[in-house]
Amino acid sequence: MSPVIPGVKRATPDGPAGALGGVKVLDFSHALAGPYCTMILADLGADVLKVEHPGGGDRTRRFTDGDEDFSAYFGSVNRGKKSVVIDLKNPSGLELAKRLAAEADVLVHNLGPGVFERLGMDYETLAATNPRLIFAQVTGFGADGPWADRTGVDPVIQALSGSMSITGEPDGGPVRVGYSIVDLSGGVWMAMDVLAALNERHVSGKGQFLDVSLLEGMMTLMENAVVRYTYNGIIPERQGSSHPYTKLTAAYETADGWMVFSISARNWKKCCEIWGRDDWLNDPVLHEKPEDNADILRPEVRKILKEHTRAYWQEHMGGAGILCTPINTVAEAVTLEPLIERGYMTTTTDANGADLTVAGSPLRMSRTPGRVRAAAPILGEHNRSQLKSWLGMDDAEFARYEAEGVFEQKPRETRGFW
Amino acid sequence: MSPVIPGVKRATPDGPAGALGGVKVLDFSHALAGPYCTMILADLGADVLKVEHPGGGDRTRRFTDGDEDFSAYFGSVNRGKKSVVIDLKNPSGLELAKRLAAEADVLVHNLGPGVFERLGMDYETLAATNPRLIFAQVTGFGADGPWADRTGVDPVIQALSGSMSITGEPDGGPVRVGYSIVDLSGGVWMAMDVLAALNERHVSGKGQFLDVSLLEGMMTLMENAVVRYTYNGIIPERQGSSHPYTKLTAAYETADGWMVFSISARNWKKCCEIWGRDDWLNDPVLHEKPEDNADILRPEVRKILKEHTRAYWQEHMGGAGILCTPINTVAEAVTLEPLIERGYMTTTTDANGADLTVAGSPLRMSRTPGRVRAAAPILGEHNRSQLKSWLGMDDAEFARYEAEGVFEQKPRETRGFW
Repeated sequence: MSPVIPGVKRATPDGPAGALGGVKVLDFSHALAGPYCTMILADLGADVLKVEHPGGGDRTRRFTDGDEDFSAYFGSVNRGKKSVVIDLKNPSGLELAKRLAAEADVLVHNLGPGVFERLGMDYETLAATNPRLIFAQVTGFGADGPWADRTGVDPVIQALSGSMSITGEPDGGPVRVGYSIVDLSGGVWMAMDVLAALNERHVSGKGQFLDVSLLEGMMTLMENAVVRYTYNGIIPERQGSSHPYTKLTAAYETADGWMVFSISARNWKKCCEIWGRDDWLNDPVLHEKPEDNADILRPEVRKILKEHTRAYWQEHMGGAGILCTPINTVAEAVTLEPLIERGYMTTTTDANGADLTVAGSPLRMSRTPGRVRAAAPILGEHNRSQLKSWLGMDDAEFARYEAEGVFEQKPRETRGFW
Repeated sequence: MSPVIPGVKRATPDGPAGALGGVKVLDFSHALAGPYCTMILADLGADVLKVEHPGGGDRTRRFTDGDEDFSAYFGSVNRGKKSVVIDLKNPSGLELAKRLAAEADVLVHNLGPGVFERLGMDYETLAATNPRLIFAQVTGFGADGPWADRTGVDPVIQALSGSMSITGEPDGGPVRVGYSIVDLSGGVWMAMDVLAALNERHVSGKGQFLDVSLLEGMMTLMENAVVRYTYNGIIPERQGSSHPYTKLTAAYETADGWMVFSISARNWKKCCEIWGRDDWLNDPVLHEKPEDNADILRPEVRKILKEHTRAYWQEHMGGAGILCTPINTVAEAVTLEPLIERGYMTTTTDANGADLTVAGSPLRMSRTPGRVRAAAPILGEHNRSQLKSWLGMDDAEFARYEAEGVFEQKPRETRGFW
């Protein structure tokens, strides 16, 4: 059952226009990296038309948590988009997709290498009729180079990039970041690339080909671990909950749950006083550079912090100006006051009446804020309305395509893409 | 000692123009979130002028790994920017900063709430003389709302957001993502917001105030964990190296190191055949939905995969089309073929002759690619040249400011900001 979170606002089409109002995005993406990119663009007010496979559409529509007819996974990253079903294996369907591409400002896909070439919809071909088109693709390892044909998915690239080698306990195994950081960062870089290209198009009048690599996107987030190695040859290792430069700032278990305490040379004297550890302050080695002695101090600090509750430490350490905070569950996090009061968390209702409360847009702008504008679409919900608005298609023409089987839904396929 | 990585290219000012060529960014940020934002803008070709504190500049210049005079931490995220030292406590310095703000397209800061108001450089005031200005700030919890005055730093927000609660081993403690994901994602969202606002300005001619919250940025990356909870009330937990929807795809220890194997219902039959586990295929429960029986199967699969080396499994499982990959160290990752051959990794050389090999830009574009253009600046390196290019300042005027102590460097301060 969906928990009730008091004070969450509802998505509404009313409100300020978005920064990308009027920008037409033709979206052939599925699963996560591509859809996350177009989610960002939709939150910014772009007109995102998701072209889905007749065999059940985006396969994440079937990533259900028990309820066969609703996927929270799909609903979250596809809010605010429109859905059309077009069978690209039907010649009329392919012709229709090309007509849409001729009207698009941006085309986004993550269908893997070679698919758009096979369809005759590669960038060069489309740009010949629509030179303003921005064609953005994301693949595992880039459109060219030695691994252009390899498949790169999130868990593989969390491993290859070194991310897993530096996430986890020092004495434990490699750990995955608890969300699909490779796909998400890939989607983010792709949206960034699209925005940069849209900006440049205002000057040059021309589109271009954007080639995002999930591996490169991930390495870019690891920039500090990269230079720690390239500068002095020391290979970064797993450090549990602490930071390589502030080794005592970490998660500690208290008497009633986990907290993070920010403990450093700057507040060390205060900490020792609160803990009654004058001996450390008087110690010629330990009194000044606690980080340099983190291995000696950590087990002792753990013992001390275990002795009292979170409330006690919040009062005594937090009250003394030492940053500390409970480690929230996701349930606790989504109810945090600033998220509710700033209207970040948002509830959407789809065409079937299903509610979903989603994480909002961080793209705050005073005049044209990013925001969740509507729920995710039902499969093929906007066939008629969007072909009308993109192409000026009248009922007779729509009926002709319909008669040719362009929009016809088929048995569900596991893959659900081209 | 810096390791030698064969084939890494060198940064050069020559090459294609960037998508943000001609965009002037006045950068008052320090440490990570703000500088990561302006790193992205500099890689895209914007003209980023970093205004630094006379007490040693950005404090991350002192985050050294042993060598007092060089910080890889600083060098990485500040590549391609220009540095001027301006004392904002000197009335002439403050006046000079305001003159620069009048010329800027974008102003970026992460100096915390209230600082720019105190300086008389808040958005409203600056916009009165420069209505095209895009003023971007990032704070822990947003510019308004109940926590506007609280400090939110990376480890605190990794805890508050729930990220730590879902990262780590199921039977272990909460784990920090091995890089500063809160600050980095905050910087990324900020750059995205700036690009969206620049786009919108092409239409409206107006700037705006951008208000990025690190907490909101982090929650946006956790979108799937958020909806798993908000949809069915089940609180996401730590899952080690596996994914909530593909529970057998995980890190496994082989005879000579860790690998990730992508094991799912789709390739389960193939896996069982390679492992010689016909019994699982014949088992009425285990043969079809291995994920539903992950808790029973996982210890057995661990035993099997431990029996052979990485090379063996790469040949036998990888060769059979099952995705698998070694878990690289950072040292292994930075030498991956596609990163070198696509010219991603880049070596910069600063004005003191120090080399640093950094993670490149993932913002590939066919005409105006993002790229690392130059090294990070020495403190105050561009005082004269940039005041000339931004304000047309001649030597006499520069000398007057100089005589007033505007550029004078002072003893290093721990904080190094306003």
